[in-house]
Parts: sequence; structure tokens; C-alpha cells
Amino acid sequence: MREVAIAGVAMTRFGVSEKTCIEMFCEAACLALEESKLEPKNIEALFLGNCLGDFEEGQAHMAAHVHTAIGLPMGSPALRFENACATATVAIRQAALLVGSGVYDVVLAGGTERVAAMDTPLATRTFAMASHSGYSAPTGITFPGVFAMAAHMYADKYKIDIRELQECMAHVSVKNHFHAAMNPKAQFQKEISVQKVLDSFMVADPLHFLDCCPFSDGASAVVITTKQKALQMTDKPVFIIGTGQAAGGPVINNPDMTRIKPREVAAAQAYKQAGVTPFDIDLCELHDCFTIAEILAIEGLGFYEFGKGYDAAKNGETRLGSKKAVINPSGGLKAKGHPIGATGAAQVTEIVEQLRGLSGKRQVKGAKTGFVDTLGGEFGTVCNLILRSHP
Amino acid sequence: MREVAIAGVAMTRFGVSEKTCIEMFCEAACLALEESKLEPKNIEALFLGNCLGDFEEGQAHMAAHVHTAIGLPMGSPALRFENACATATVAIRQAALLVGSGVYDVVLAGGTERVAAMDTPLATRTFAMASHSGYSAPTGITFPGVFAMAAHMYADKYKIDIRELQECMAHVSVKNHFHAAMNPKAQFQKEISVQKVLDSFMVADPLHFLDCCPFSDGASAVVITTKQKALQMTDKPVFIIGTGQAAGGPVINNPDMTRIKPREVAAAQAYKQAGVTPFDIDLCELHDCFTIAEILAIEGLGFYEFGKGYDAAKNGETRLGSKKAVINPSGGLKAKGHPIGATGAAQVTEIVEQLRGLSGKRQVKGAKTGFVDTLGGEFGTVCNLILRSHP
Repeated sequence: MREVAIAGVAMTRFGVSEKTCIEMFCEAACLALEESKLEPKNIEALFLGNCLGDFEEGQAHMAAHVHTAIGLPMGSPALRFENACATATVAIRQAALLVGSGVYDVVLAGGTERVAAMDTPLATRTFAMASHSGYSAPTGITFPGVFAMAAHMYADKYKIDIRELQECMAHVSVKNHFHAAMNPKAQFQKEISVQKVLDSFMVADPLHFLDCCPFSDGASAVVITTKQKALQMTDKPVFIIGTGQAAGGPVINNPDMTRIKPREVAAAQAYKQAGVTPFDIDLCELHDCFTIAEILAIEGLGFYEFGKGYDAAKNGETRLGSKKAVINPSGGLKAKGHPIGATGAAQVTEIVEQLRGLSGKRQVKGAKTGFVDTLGGEFGTVCNLILRSHP
Repeated sequence: MREVAIAGVAMTRFGVSEKTCIEMFCEAACLALEESKLEPKNIEALFLGNCLGDFEEGQAHMAAHVHTAIGLPMGSPALRFENACATATVAIRQAALLVGSGVYDVVLAGGTERVAAMDTPLATRTFAMASHSGYSAPTGITFPGVFAMAAHMYADKYKIDIRELQECMAHVSVKNHFHAAMNPKAQFQKEISVQKVLDSFMVADPLHFLDCCPFSDGASAVVITTKQKALQMTDKPVFIIGTGQAAGGPVINNPDMTRIKPREVAAAQAYKQAGVTPFDIDLCELHDCFTIAEILAIEGLGFYEFGKGYDAAKNGETRLGSKKAVINPSGGLKAKGHPIGATGAAQVTEIVEQLRGLSGKRQVKGAKTGFVDTLGGEFGTVCNLILRSHP
């Protein structure tokens, strides 16, 4: 395998947009191409992530239309990927595999999504299509319900009072809002308090409203290329040194919801390929769709022992300035926003900018090795990437 | 690149099914694994094509659920692809690229779709989501309309009386029904007459009802592996000797609808890689969603000069027994059926069985080299594969 590098990254501001998915992706893609000193004619393939374009805009077959809008060469194929919330990470990992193995030299990958126009009942029902339509959806369970159950199981398994866990989860939200307040691309650029989280209305016990990520519109694009070519495009390439992807679910097959097994398998693949351990990771963008999900993820990725990660945010261990791995310096899905099919590419964008030292007030000092973790559905897909700065 | 082979293929009978997309794909996948003497634990990745599972069954994120249903290992990733009608061919081509480049040794690829339960207005509107939601869909045009325009432009450009073209198109339908009558997996296993086509009601002038492919349910699966491994699984492996994929559209960008440019680009890629010309092709499964589409395809793929392919079916040149390339020996989309996201895999299945000499009454005698052509959307994606029998 050849060494794989990221030359350029970009994202739209996440939040509520009046642009279409195609327009948002074009905005991000053109910025990423510009940063990479590339023209559309240099792109050999387009790997586009999108989950709900057909539902939201009546736009299926989106990759072909993005291809035309950007002006890519006809002979460069355009493909659409969909793996629920892990969609863009999967598209980027495929690009890395095909560049690494010598099939392509330059691939444009990423994702785009527009869901903020849906009201909460419609969006929640629409997202629930990612769960199993035979086993899970008919029970009426939605994703807040899945993660609420996981929170109760966590409290029960590790004998933590549910009020204490709620307070610890609130600290996750407070920490991610603190980070997002320094991120000009974030949906919510303001700090909140633990009390405000605990006072917000209950969505699915024990998860309050401010334990849940928002509905967001946005897009993000990444240029993936060889080490050699990347060094011609930028003096700050970032290398993809390890990747992993695993599949599982539905939740009925995961009786212990405190352990998301596909994550453990995917992360092990990525760590092994990269030749690093969790102790080598300086920062991590991970899948905090709900605050409990961040707690499960920091354990599943090996940053904390199982049952020991719940108070890491409360203790300031995952916050900017910590000596341990900084978790979600972008603000995470919780505060940066979560446009489903774009999320993984935005996670990559954050890690790349951090490893280049370009993250301003929220810069993780001396960051060299970063981790990307994206979870799809009721634990059905996990895709992980490990990125490293140019020495 | 390593030589890439197909070890096992299978498809459900196309038509109307009461099974879910997941169940149909599992049926095909288990048969393909059995034919390859493989167990689920041997599969290193699942590349699943599906277009409308979310609309039809409320099932997004389908690859992960298929993965679990078949019992694949957690560490083998599951990915969903969507490129309109070219979906499964794109998934298979990606599998071929990743096996060829050494990333995987054994990939299960294919597609599944259930659309027959939709009534015609809903299905037509749903399919139209593959056209551009900004430029094309708002004009009210649907796919019958796109191909009806192409038929009129063809008649006009080549100065053919529209009645004569209609009769020639009817012969395409008659020929494909003749083939399908010998295919136990086809949706319509009965012959029809030219008069019956011309007497059927008008869908979009000049296309009659029997110029149009049906709505179909079905699934098809293909095991893609290395030459070395394939020879351990079967004494009749089939090799993927060339592939191509290109992107274009929307139709507003294709002023001459008689020439589907992405097809010409994709086919050129595939011919070049395979080191063959159209004259070397013994049989071809191509995208006859409407009868005019078959005429455009046999010209675009180089079997006939532009403007000269319209009467090939009428003259019996594309029919079983012809000395020229036999077109759609399975019955094609017209008569075998067209379950959108499964179609490409079923085309591959037909070519593989033909190259193995297992096609019974519809066997193309001495078939050694076969071509797969799948078109997505309003000419937005074309994906081509060239397959060759084991010497």
C-alpha cells in the first residue's frame, strides 16, 4: 500500500441552510480543491456521501449531479455512498483504500445533507429508517430511545446512580459547547451550563434535550491523494496512517448496549495498521450524537477502561488543555452540528486543521496524531481513521 | 492489478415478491456462496446496491442489516451504493477494483430492490428523483419522457419515419420477450408480437406500453475474487477483463440525446483495459429500459455505427443464433425485469452463466466474451464490464 495523504479540506458552516445538498457540497468541494491547488480536471473520482437527499429534496443519484455541477471530467466516475451517520467516513475510507492500492492518485470525497427543514417528529421518524425495519422500527424505538436504553444499561452495569450519570453526561454537552464556541463553522457557538442541560426538557429518559445533537444542514469535502502528490499541493499534508470499518446490529443482536462491538473491531483494525495505541492519540473527533454516546465511544476506542469514562468530561480530562486525548475539539455532533451524511468528512476536516496547527483558539497544542470515529445506525456501522501530521 | 474472477452468481426470480429487500438479497447471496463453496466467514466485504429501500420499506442503512442477516464477520465491512439504475454494476466494479488492487481477496457484491408494490404514478415519480431535482424534475419530465424525446431526436437526426422507428423498436421488445421465454428467472416468460406492441397503449409518444420495461422486485449476488482463489472454488471461473465508469448529465447538458456520451467514455475505458474491440463481443446484456434505449446502446457500445442500429432487431441480427453479438439473451430489462438496484448484478449473472455454457435453451453457442452495460438516471452514470470465460 502507498502512503495516503489529505491535501485539502473544507466544510460549510453547519446549521440551517437554504442551499440544496448539491450546492452545499459544491461550496465545500471548490474550497478543498482551491486549498489543494487543484482544478476539477485533476480529480479522478468523486465519492459522495448522502443519506436523505431523496426524502428531503427529491434528489437521488446525487453523485452524478454533483459531478456535473463541479465540472469533473466525464471519465472520472461519481459514486454515492450511504451507511447512515457513518456515510462520509465510509466514502473517505474507500477513497483512501483506492489511492493506497494504486487505483487512483486523486479522489474528491466527502458528504452533504439537508435535514434541518424537517420538524422533529418527521426527522426522528426518517432517521429511524437506519434501524432495522423488521426488528427495531416496528417496536417504535427511535435513536434517542436506543441511546437512552444504553445510558440506563450503563448506569445499571457499573452501579452508577442515574442522577450522577445525568450530571456527567451534562458535562459532556457543556464541554462540547465550550469547544464549539471557538469554532466559526459550528451550529451553536455559545457556551451552556450543566444546570441548563439538566433543566432542559426530557427527550427520552435519562436524556435531556441538551444531551442530544441538533438537526443540521451542511457539507464537507476532502481531497485524498498520494504522499508524493500531496507534497506538491501543500506543505502541510496530513497522512491517513490507519483505517478500520466493521458492521453489526441491529440492537437486538447487541444485548450489552454499553459495548458497541463493531467499534472495538474497527478501532483495532485502525490501531494495528497505524502501529499506534490509544495513548498515542492527541485528539479525537467521535460520534457524540447523544452525550452517552461520547462516554461509550471514549471507552470503546480505548482511551478509558470500560465503566471508567463516564466522569472524564466532569473531571476536565477530555477538554481543551487536558494532557489526555482532547475529545471533540470542534464541538462534536452535539454543538458543531450533525448533517448526517456530511458528519464524517467534517470530523476529518477538524482533525486535519488541528494537525496543521490552524485551529485558532481551540488548537490542541502539539497535536500530531488524531482519531476519527463515526457510528452509523443502531450500532450497524463503525468507521475509524487515524491521521498524522507531516513531520 | 491482479486478475479478477467471478466464482459464483445467483439471482431471485424477478417479478413481484412479498419478501423484503434484505430477504431477497439473502436468498441470492446464499446461493452465490454455495456455488462458490464459501461460508459467510470467508467474505471480506459486502458491497450492496439498493436505490429505494428507504422509500419502499422504510429501510435505509441496508448493507449493515444484510451483513447481519447473512452472518458475515463483524470485521468485514458492509457498504451501500446508489447510482440509480447503474447501482449494482457500480458496486461490482468497486469490488473488482479492490480485489484487483490487492485490498481484498473475496467480496460479495450485488443489489436488491422492491418496487413492484408501487402503482405506476408513484413509481414513475419516485424513479424521477434520479433526474436533476433543480433542472429536470421541475419540468415534469419522467424517464419515459426522456427516452421518448431521444426516440424523436433519433428519427429526426437520421431521417427515419417515426412509424418505421416504432416498428423497429417493437422488434426489440419482441426479441427480448423471445429470449425471456427461455429464462426461468424472467418476469415475463412469454413471447409477444410486433402488432401487440404497436397496439398497446401510448405511454409517451412514440413509446408504447410494451416498449417500456416493467416494475420489478428482485435481487442478485456475485462473488468476486482473485483468479487463484476462484480456481479453488469452481472449475468455471469467469474473468473480469475490463471495466469502465463515467458520469454526466443532466439531459440539459446533453443536447444530442441520440449519443449518451458517458457510455462512449466508459465503454472505451473497458475495451482498452480488456484489449478487445466490439467485434470480439459474443453477447451483451445492456440497458433496455425502453426499446429505444437498446438501439442507442448497441450504437454507443460500438456494435453498430451511429444511426445504423435501429433495424438490427428487425433484421434478426441481435437475436439468439445471430453471428453478430447477441443482445440481451436474458430477456433484458424489458422482459427479464428491472428491479433498479439489482439490475446490474443480474446482467452479470446472465453473462457468467452464458460464458459457462449453462444457459440451456437460450445458450449463445461458443460464447467467450461478454459485455455488461448499465445506465443510471438521465444519462448520469454508465458502468461497463467485460467478462471472459475460462479458457
